[in-house]
Amino acid sequence: MAQHEDGRLGVGMIGYAFMGAAHSQAWRVAPRFFDLALRPEMTVVAGRDSTAVEAARVRLGWGAAETDWRAVVARDDVDLVDICTPGDTHAEIAIAALQAGKHVLCEKPLANTVAEAEAMTAAAEAAAEQGVRAMVGFTYRRVPAIALARQLVAEGRIGQVRQVRAQYLQDWIADAEAPLSWRLDKAVAGSGALGDIGAHVVDLAQHVTGQVLTGVSGLLETFVHERPVAAGFSGLHGSAGTERGPVTVDDAAVFFGRLSGGGIATFEATRFAWGRKNAIRLEVNGSHGSIAFDFEDMNVLHLYDATDEARVAGFRRIVVTEPEHPYVGAWWPAGHGLGYEHGFVHQVVDLVGALAAGEQPTPSFADGLQVQRVLDAVERSAADESRWTFVDPGPTPPPRASDDGLPGAAVPEPKES
Amino acid sequence: MAQHEDGRLGVGMIGYAFMGAAHSQAWRVAPRFFDLALRPEMTVVAGRDSTAVEAARVRLGWGAAETDWRAVVARDDVDLVDICTPGDTHAEIAIAALQAGKHVLCEKPLANTVAEAEAMTAAAEAAAEQGVRAMVGFTYRRVPAIALARQLVAEGRIGQVRQVRAQYLQDWIADAEAPLSWRLDKAVAGSGALGDIGAHVVDLAQHVTGQVLTGVSGLLETFVHERPVAAGFSGLHGSAGTERGPVTVDDAAVFFGRLSGGGIATFEATRFAWGRKNAIRLEVNGSHGSIAFDFEDMNVLHLYDATDEARVAGFRRIVVTEPEHPYVGAWWPAGHGLGYEHGFVHQVVDLVGALAAGEQPTPSFADGLQVQRVLDAVERSAADESRWTFVDPGPTPPPRASDDGLPGAAVPEPKES
Amino acid sequence: MAQHEDGRLGVGMIGYAFMGAAHSQAWRVAPRFFDLALRPEMTVVAGRDSTAVEAARVRLGWGAAETDWRAVVARDDVDLVDICTPGDTHAEIAIAALQAGKHVLCEKPLANTVAEAEAMTAAAEAAAEQGVRAMVGFTYRRVPAIALARQLVAEGRIGQVRQVRAQYLQDWIADAEAPLSWRLDKAVAGSGALGDIGAHVVDLAQHVTGQVLTGVSGLLETFVHERPVAAGFSGLHGSAGTERGPVTVDDAAVFFGRLSGGGIATFEATRFAWGRKNAIRLEVNGSHGSIAFDFEDMNVLHLYDATDEARVAGFRRIVVTEPEHPYVGAWWPAGHGLGYEHGFVHQVVDLVGALAAGEQPTPSFADGLQVQRVLDAVERSAADESRWTFVDPGPTPPPRASDDGLPGAAVPEPKES
Amino acid sequence: MAQHEDGRLGVGMIGYAFMGAAHSQAWRVAPRFFDLALRPEMTVVAGRDSTAVEAARVRLGWGAAETDWRAVVARDDVDLVDICTPGDTHAEIAIAALQAGKHVLCEKPLANTVAEAEAMTAAAEAAAEQGVRAMVGFTYRRVPAIALARQLVAEGRIGQVRQVRAQYLQDWIADAEAPLSWRLDKAVAGSGALGDIGAHVVDLAQHVTGQVLTGVSGLLETFVHERPVAAGFSGLHGSAGTERGPVTVDDAAVFFGRLSGGGIATFEATRFAWGRKNAIRLEVNGSHGSIAFDFEDMNVLHLYDATDEARVAGFRRIVVTEPEHPYVGAWWPAGHGLGYEHGFVHQVVDLVGALAAGEQPTPSFADGLQVQRVLDAVERSAADESRWTFVDPGPTPPPRASDDGLPGAAVPEPKES
Repeated sequence: MAQHEDGRLGVGMIGYAFMGAAHSQAWRVAPRFFDLALRPEMTVVAGRDSTAVEAARVRLGWGAAETDWRAVVARDDVDLVDICTPGDTHAEIAIAALQAGKHVLCEKPLANTVAEAEAMTAAAEAAAEQGVRAMVGFTYRRVPAIALARQLVAEGRIGQVRQVRAQYLQDWIADAEAPLSWRLDKAVAGSGALGDIGAHVVDLAQHVTGQVLTGVSGLLETFVHERPVAAGFSGLHGSAGTERGPVTVDDAAVFFGRLSGGGIATFEATRFAWGRKNAIRLEVNGSHGSIAFDFEDMNVLHLYDATDEARVAGFRRIVVTEPEHPYVGAWWPAGHGLGYEHGFVHQVVDLVGALAAGEQPTPSFADGLQVQRVLDAVERSAADESRWTFVDPGPTPPPRASDDGLPGAAVPEPKES
Repeated sequence: MAQHEDGRLGVGMIGYAFMGAAHSQAWRVAPRFFDLALRPEMTVVAGRDSTAVEAARVRLGWGAAETDWRAVVARDDVDLVDICTPGDTHAEIAIAALQAGKHVLCEKPLANTVAEAEAMTAAAEAAAEQGVRAMVGFTYRRVPAIALARQLVAEGRIGQVRQVRAQYLQDWIADAEAPLSWRLDKAVAGSGALGDIGAHVVDLAQHVTGQVLTGVSGLLETFVHERPVAAGFSGLHGSAGTERGPVTVDDAAVFFGRLSGGGIATFEATRFAWGRKNAIRLEVNGSHGSIAFDFEDMNVLHLYDATDEARVAGFRRIVVTEPEHPYVGAWWPAGHGLGYEHGFVHQVVDLVGALAAGEQPTPSFADGLQVQRVLDAVERSAADESRWTFVDPGPTPPPRASDDGLPGAAVPEPKES
Repeated sequence: MAQHEDGRLGVGMIGYAFMGAAHSQAWRVAPRFFDLALRPEMTVVAGRDSTAVEAARVRLGWGAAETDWRAVVARDDVDLVDICTPGDTHAEIAIAALQAGKHVLCEKPLANTVAEAEAMTAAAEAAAEQGVRAMVGFTYRRVPAIALARQLVAEGRIGQVRQVRAQYLQDWIADAEAPLSWRLDKAVAGSGALGDIGAHVVDLAQHVTGQVLTGVSGLLETFVHERPVAAGFSGLHGSAGTERGPVTVDDAAVFFGRLSGGGIATFEATRFAWGRKNAIRLEVNGSHGSIAFDFEDMNVLHLYDATDEARVAGFRRIVVTEPEHPYVGAWWPAGHGLGYEHGFVHQVVDLVGALAAGEQPTPSFADGLQVQRVLDAVERSAADESRWTFVDPGPTPPPRASDDGLPGAAVPEPKES
Repeated sequence: MAQHEDGRLGVGMIGYAFMGAAHSQAWRVAPRFFDLALRPEMTVVAGRDSTAVEAARVRLGWGAAETDWRAVVARDDVDLVDICTPGDTHAEIAIAALQAGKHVLCEKPLANTVAEAEAMTAAAEAAAEQGVRAMVGFTYRRVPAIALARQLVAEGRIGQVRQVRAQYLQDWIADAEAPLSWRLDKAVAGSGALGDIGAHVVDLAQHVTGQVLTGVSGLLETFVHERPVAAGFSGLHGSAGTERGPVTVDDAAVFFGRLSGGGIATFEATRFAWGRKNAIRLEVNGSHGSIAFDFEDMNVLHLYDATDEARVAGFRRIVVTEPEHPYVGAWWPAGHGLGYEHGFVHQVVDLVGALAAGEQPTPSFADGLQVQRVLDAVERSAADESRWTFVDPGPTPPPRASDDGLPGAAVPEPKES
């Protein structure tokens, strides 16, 4: 199974909302700009509502539609299952698909609980022995500026990492009258800002530094406890027949932690920062320099090199659109920036590349599990007077895949005594 | 012809380099995010080299390949000819296509000379009587922030336009050892920075203000007169057998002019501004406010509203990714920015919409001709001691299509005496 | 005492280093741009080294020099003692001066310990009954953009405060070979980044929101434990006769907390953020908008008003140099920005105004004590596994002077349920 | 005369409005932060209205007041006459002062006409033979970021200069109802935006590049032809007894030109750019890099070094507050920015240094005359259909003083063929 003998990669996608549209665009576009060793085919899309899924099929350009995800998993012409549903369904689908010998691309967060994520990781490890691969979709890793940031840190360009500050700021529910959605229902979404967007900045901070968080102290907050139930909106506990329903997740999460390399890091995830639309901010201060990124200016990376002559040292505003930059050469001339969805295209490119090479794509389910453990530690700390809480290291050493072959040893020894 | 009775729109594209890739992406993606009244089909692509065009066909996803553009024009299954070749070929292809009853989308600049552009415009006007349409590809008009800027100016939000400053700054040949290309050969490209990128900012300034330039004073400059001939590079006059060939176009163009509404405008186009990758900058100062744009931050428009309370007045950094903004609702949530190629998608959307409605798409060939006349006036001024030179108004009043139905009368009367 | 019958205000300044220079400039310049009800005279400056203090006297423009601060306190021609020495000396000098009937302006942090700060506050309250006033120098409150921010929040412009993020980022000891200074010696400085710069952002966050922190969770970190002893450098424990001495304070402090109005806040203070020179950043998100400030662009305040029309909403970049803005009318035309030292001038203006009016200047010693209690809570939390730690509320309700007469009741009721 | 035998430098200032306040601040503050070889004394200030000048004397801190500038020139205790009046009075005062053996600091523009400027320059050259010095106040040269820009260009850091774009954008009369002032009266001010603010960017462009403009093409525009006469406002032709008076100067000036080294430059000066408060923008593109500056962020210089590795090249945002930067070491720690008036302090420092050393301060009157000739060429071009107009080179080669000893030869040969 998963042999791709004819070079074809049949894809079955579960879910077709926001993430489904982004993934569809990626499967469609990737082969047009990149040389792929396998030929993805948009075979089938699945959703519960037959009318809606057929409309999505036509709109998004899939070959067939199914109303049960199990039918997708069962199809012979599907080599890879792409899971774009809410977090409470990830474990069941992913495990079934892996056991059926299908590769899996699963949206983040990997699962709503550590237990689910552990089961998924175990399934992925078992499947890997059969050459079946699993990847979790932390797509911001493939924004070129972030990929460059990782390169620079790994090469030791900013020296030993001392501090990280990571923020994910949005404002889409800052209006207290914004309606309820499944993202505000703990049973479906698992958590609020913490799992939805905090997961991204935890992954980015760890990915760019090449380190893991070992302990955290955190605080969760819900500012608006009840919201209007949108017309046609259903499935939230207690909302039936009433005009307002409860928000059961956090609106904002703040925490700080320690990195395995000894540095410290601060995090904030919120959907209440009026005026910040999708501000994913990451700054890393090392012993020899700093890097800084903000997704509101996603084609730019800022680098401060402390070894520059003092008179002309300053944050360099690198427009990450040059042929020398990761992924960018396949697209447009310098200065012709990319957008949000390009990260998904790059994800497909790297995933297909790994599958063709018979290698583990990254981030792996183990990577996703590790992020889940960080979120879990934040929740436990928040429930225990913000007390310092160690991140469960899992049964093995920190499971960081070396996804780009850059040796950690490239980071120079610190100058500190 | 051009009846679209079955809702199908067969597209034949001539040329497959940078612009060909952008147009292909647009034809492919537009139907996935927008409801189109016609169904574009990527029928055929043409290029002179049979091997190369077949490779492009596969890569870019076209149904067939031809080595002669005439064969594309002759095909019954082609309803629209999309011209992505250098400027010296535009007139011949476009006129033949229009006479054959094919709609035409032609890359900018419309032509290399005013005479060619006039012939093309005449052909377009004749074809229009048969319901055959022609459009020129000033794609930056469809960047959402630019579209918003036009809306705001047309609504009178900044009052009467007094000043415009427009710059298009690049650096891709700032290195004197960068090799020759067709863009540096006057016979092929028509002009250098002036026609290639200056044309864009002339169009944008006129589009956003809803006015035309009536006279100009200009200066053209070539900084590097000879360049290395790249391996395999040919076709430049006098370069055969030598290592270096002449640059026969301008490296930079600077000019100022007057707008039909009485304001003044400054322009600069250069490929020598080290560090500026694709900085298309437009600022408009009106009697009641200002708008400012820079393509290096393409998802943002800045607005200064002079009627705001003085204590809290300031340029507003509008992240143009809200559902209320032009084109944006079809894409991603707020803050998830678009990239360079999305303007091409929007161009296809508007073009197809106009075709389906039997209306003239904009910018028309007449609009392209008018831009060409501005460039011509700049060249004549530069050749005549920078003397003030009137832009040829053409046989009719300024041919500005009212492309969005916004009445010029919406601009309030100036307060000035 | 402190009668100012002749309109004269004799000033005696203790210390003449960085802060001494800034205070001298303020005393000299304030009367030239502002109408002051009292006439400050730069009567005497004090320092231990007679040669150095005489040189400082000439350079900074004081009338006389003393080598013992007690002599300054004892002088009849001194009405106000301006304390610019390290924190370990504040309590003794301030209490003596107040008891001698002299007004006191004391640099921040108020003291190195809560106990000292309490004693100083008690002395200030006793003195106040005699009309003798005490003020602590949180000078950034008087940066015009910060003063405007406070106005806007107090007026309810951004609604109820939900989140604050405050950072003070510097890099002056990011180089591990930067030498020791008194600021790195706990016995002299009290703490490191926490007390030196963290105190500023705690004060600013509380000042701008009009609220106090009620509890915190924190982490302190020292990255470089030993540093070279600079030539001529002395007074650090254990450094005698050795080449390196210990750093006994924190290099970075991170913490989060709750505000008395229910919001949450995050804080970071570090001297290790390469490339950030004096980045004091404050962002406040309310129920109806946001404000943002960065001292690296100190003449600018950013305001997002969520009640603006969605299509044109965006952070407004307010250049705070208009006559309508706090303090600014006394200086230059619009756009002619102010610098670091102007905050000290405004501090003198407000202090002299309060003295002349017989009112309590702000921030009071009680305000300084309250900041000290926050820092103390951070230190206690950091020493106790980052556990949530309540800020000691003191014997009375939160001692926030209403320094500008803006009623907290102006903040509208939250929309939240 | 002008012997300074006792180290004292008596200053007499003519005029006490905006510029008078800035100059007073500079004379007062300079000795407090810089070691000056002479000891400036603020001896006397002059103005026509005896009440107003006495109030200014007290406020600005001068020793005496005079109502006739001739009395200042005649005083034995005045060594230097500082001219802060409108341009129509500069020639008479400066020539008289120089002939009386007084050093002169004269505000810009040097004069309202080339003829006046020539007479002043002749007087300055005659006086120089007696050791009497004259300087014109292009104070923005002494903003540290501009001084650094000049250093970098002179050292060849950006290679041979190819392009300059210089803008001075304000908005203080963008409101058509803003009242008349002497700055809008040609008889007093000489010209409008061109001479008032255009003069500054002409000087800066020439100063930073070390080159002069040799020819220009320009356009002047007046948007608002009549304005309200402010209460108490007088002296404008035709305004007596009426409510509105004519604006007799340009509101905006746009022009481009050629530099003596072969590059091209564009300029714009306007008071109608809503939202731009004092935006002095200068960008220089060389063969190896670029520098960029905007006074709205005056403590920052941007540098693009094209020799940086492509992957990490980007405009460096240099915070010009380090000890290595010009002038800055005398002030505050890194990151504690300076404001508008500091340029005036640095002007005093350099002027006093030159006087003490018996050297010519820069910019000289000859430098000011050369700027005047550029402005004159712009006016002549604007009056002659924007035709190319050569800048009068004067009787001698371009009179650029080598004010910092940096050899032009340090600029590397261009790579161009």
